[in-house]
Amino acid sequence: MPRESSAEERMTAVAQAHTAFRHVRTSTSDERSRWLVGIAEALEEHRSALVAVADEETALGAGRLNGELDRTIHQLHHFGDVIAQEKHRRAIDQPGDPDASPQPRPSLRQMRVPLGPVAVWGASNFPFAFGVFGGDTASALAAGCPVIAVEHPGHPRTSELLAEIAQGALGECDALRGTFALLAGRATGASLIADAQVKAGAFTGSYAGGRALFDIANSRPDPIPFFAEMGSVNPVFITRQAVRQRGREIAQGLVDSATLGVGQFCTKPGLVFVSDGVDFVTMVEDRVANVAPAPMLTDSIAANYRQRRSEMMHNSAARATFANASSADESEGSAAVLVIDHKALKESWSVLSEECFGPLMVIVTCDSDSHLVDWAQQTPGSLTATIHASGDDPNDRATVNLLVDELQDSAGRIIFNGWPTGVAVSEAMHHGGPHPATMNPIFTSVGAQAIDRFLKPVTMQGFPDELIPLWLRGGTPLA
Amino acid sequence: MPRESSAEERMTAVAQAHTAFRHVRTSTSDERSRWLVGIAEALEEHRSALVAVADEETALGAGRLNGELDRTIHQLHHFGDVIAQEKHRRAIDQPGDPDASPQPRPSLRQMRVPLGPVAVWGASNFPFAFGVFGGDTASALAAGCPVIAVEHPGHPRTSELLAEIAQGALGECDALRGTFALLAGRATGASLIADAQVKAGAFTGSYAGGRALFDIANSRPDPIPFFAEMGSVNPVFITRQAVRQRGREIAQGLVDSATLGVGQFCTKPGLVFVSDGVDFVTMVEDRVANVAPAPMLTDSIAANYRQRRSEMMHNSAARATFANASSADESEGSAAVLVIDHKALKESWSVLSEECFGPLMVIVTCDSDSHLVDWAQQTPGSLTATIHASGDDPNDRATVNLLVDELQDSAGRIIFNGWPTGVAVSEAMHHGGPHPATMNPIFTSVGAQAIDRFLKPVTMQGFPDELIPLWLRGGTPLA
Repeated sequence: MPRESSAEERMTAVAQAHTAFRHVRTSTSDERSRWLVGIAEALEEHRSALVAVADEETALGAGRLNGELDRTIHQLHHFGDVIAQEKHRRAIDQPGDPDASPQPRPSLRQMRVPLGPVAVWGASNFPFAFGVFGGDTASALAAGCPVIAVEHPGHPRTSELLAEIAQGALGECDALRGTFALLAGRATGASLIADAQVKAGAFTGSYAGGRALFDIANSRPDPIPFFAEMGSVNPVFITRQAVRQRGREIAQGLVDSATLGVGQFCTKPGLVFVSDGVDFVTMVEDRVANVAPAPMLTDSIAANYRQRRSEMMHNSAARATFANASSADESEGSAAVLVIDHKALKESWSVLSEECFGPLMVIVTCDSDSHLVDWAQQTPGSLTATIHASGDDPNDRATVNLLVDELQDSAGRIIFNGWPTGVAVSEAMHHGGPHPATMNPIFTSVGAQAIDRFLKPVTMQGFPDELIPLWLRGGTPLA
Repeated sequence: MPRESSAEERMTAVAQAHTAFRHVRTSTSDERSRWLVGIAEALEEHRSALVAVADEETALGAGRLNGELDRTIHQLHHFGDVIAQEKHRRAIDQPGDPDASPQPRPSLRQMRVPLGPVAVWGASNFPFAFGVFGGDTASALAAGCPVIAVEHPGHPRTSELLAEIAQGALGECDALRGTFALLAGRATGASLIADAQVKAGAFTGSYAGGRALFDIANSRPDPIPFFAEMGSVNPVFITRQAVRQRGREIAQGLVDSATLGVGQFCTKPGLVFVSDGVDFVTMVEDRVANVAPAPMLTDSIAANYRQRRSEMMHNSAARATFANASSADESEGSAAVLVIDHKALKESWSVLSEECFGPLMVIVTCDSDSHLVDWAQQTPGSLTATIHASGDDPNDRATVNLLVDELQDSAGRIIFNGWPTGVAVSEAMHHGGPHPATMNPIFTSVGAQAIDRFLKPVTMQGFPDELIPLWLRGGTPLA
């Protein structure tokens, strides 16, 4: 049975977060920057214990988990830098202008302030980078919002160890108790997002889970912003010319990307449209047949994968190829590829166009590049879309332009001649996209812009400089 | 009976907006800038006809309506300038870095792109600045989103004339039919926000209206962003020292601001906390008694005002003073002030702390400045909060700091020694705030940042420069 916090634990966490917020909201960005760095250093210090317990719980392996912890630590330092420079305040100063038209203008000084306590749900597939101390928690704390995190039942001990380390580090930086708390359980989460003292929510996980919490957040007497990142099919479009020039390399790259981490990435390429690709499909099938089965995050995730895979096979006209399925045990996922002609896709669309969490991809064979563009109009909202084409060929350049026109509507990131797995934490990154990839296409959950989700503007009108509190200053004059 | 569009009119408008979007999304910002300027010039050309019909329908008077049209025209030029400079794209270029840690980074280029067709509801109280061609429509078009506007039943002829003028100007600029359409009616609006081709909504009006549309937008199979600005009580806090130094001037300013435009401003100061203000209250009451009744926007708005006013009087312990109520006719609103001691406020809180749309204010008499701070913790989300204090007095400065700490949580704009009515269209302005003032505290509906509501980020990864379409370029390199 997954752990479930008591109502008392939940109410205590919320009350302490509310009290902490009344202090955190007037903390300087410098102070909070020190908290983030303090936590980053504490995570580094406990690296071996963290990786060991996470590996026991998720079977992701020490190599991958160490890399993920690197990224998590890097992210805390990066957010610390961003806020120390006060960039996130987006301050705008406009001195008063008695001669402004159509009427005199008072002095206006805009800056961003934190929303209040934020509830965060950790994901199953990245216990560090998207877990209870991942990007959502780091960006909310950077903004100045206390966090009440809800652990994923797939790795409770990892979550508890993370919470213990972070709370220790926060305590050493003199942050108030209540700045970060950890809770557990589905009913607890539902009550948490309905609590009047919680002012925003952030979630990474399944569509069903994200939607349920989103619906509660929006049906409150006072609706609150709720950000959910829920994965997607991440379509891939491969032109005839690309297949001719680099078919073998693309086939290998696709199988590597789709089976990376046993297909448990929200950016896994799951729906591939290829033009004139009979040989290409054979290459992919051959490679998939040789992918070794590997343990998935939890037994129930492995069981869900098998169920979804068989639903996709039995309710569509696709031809299926498996990796040595017989050798896989209950906890393992074995790779699979479903192949369908684009003319047969319409009838199987509803079952094949939804995400399958695991090492499965659907390949749609098209007769020509123009079909790629037709299907690009249909694909559902995704975190990413990928194009493989020849950058030199004039026809391909025209196809790429048409694909970009369509895909900007449905994808948060468009990749040229690369693969969507692996999301750099950097200023220009966007990790988001239209529904059903997220519940709000305007925001990202990776990179420093993620901090913007937990801030709101306030304009101070007619205030003399000395009456604007110290913690609100640090603005840049308007150019 | 208010006009109601037919289902066919609605479906035609949506289909044309969808088709127009497929062209508008690849328009350059320069092209759209010319549209906005073209519309601004056409509005100027038809000024006298617009003001005449709006005055007939709203009784706001030619002076006020001319000023409002100035502002509407200024806003279109301003948004045209902002997008011509590509500021709204918020482009970030990051060249690839093969030596980046923890892993090599591909080239990333982020920019903002439009969401798709937007539904806009015009407000009753500003037929130009917040009407069917007000800030919401101007900012959506600036972003590159076609607009389907729903007229307010209080001024259908003004809305239709605006639509005709704007459509003519758009046609002359070669914008596609479908870039702007006008519809009418409550059932039409409900169907519109549920339509799969509509990608966002923006509303200015009553809480009930905004909430109903928000609920539909969020219960769609694919929820969409819905921005609603719904007015608020706009609390005012006046220290003992301010009353002593400037009591007479503040009393006059308050009555002027609260009765401006017959109290039909979303920023009307409606709930006033004054410290040690017995004489002050008498001054306000004397002034209110002499305010001449004036016609409200519509007869039904006048009737709602009278009903809400009598509800506030009969369900609270407040003492009421009216302007010559007997002389007012059915269509007019007469000013009123309700006065209550802060010790009695708790029992009357629910009825007195909600907005009353019209020339009514509630004054709460407090024994000391510290009570002002206590009440600042309780006030509901508002577009504005106002502080009157002495900037020189050390006690007042401390009180101002405490008030600002509290009010940043509940108000979008904090005004020092001024009044909240009158919202400058400028870069540092914020017109928004926590629920129930709006449905999303993160965004503004006035100023160029309003454009951000209708844009989402897209990151292009690994694209050579020549494959990024012309309309997506114009980015600035990362400093």
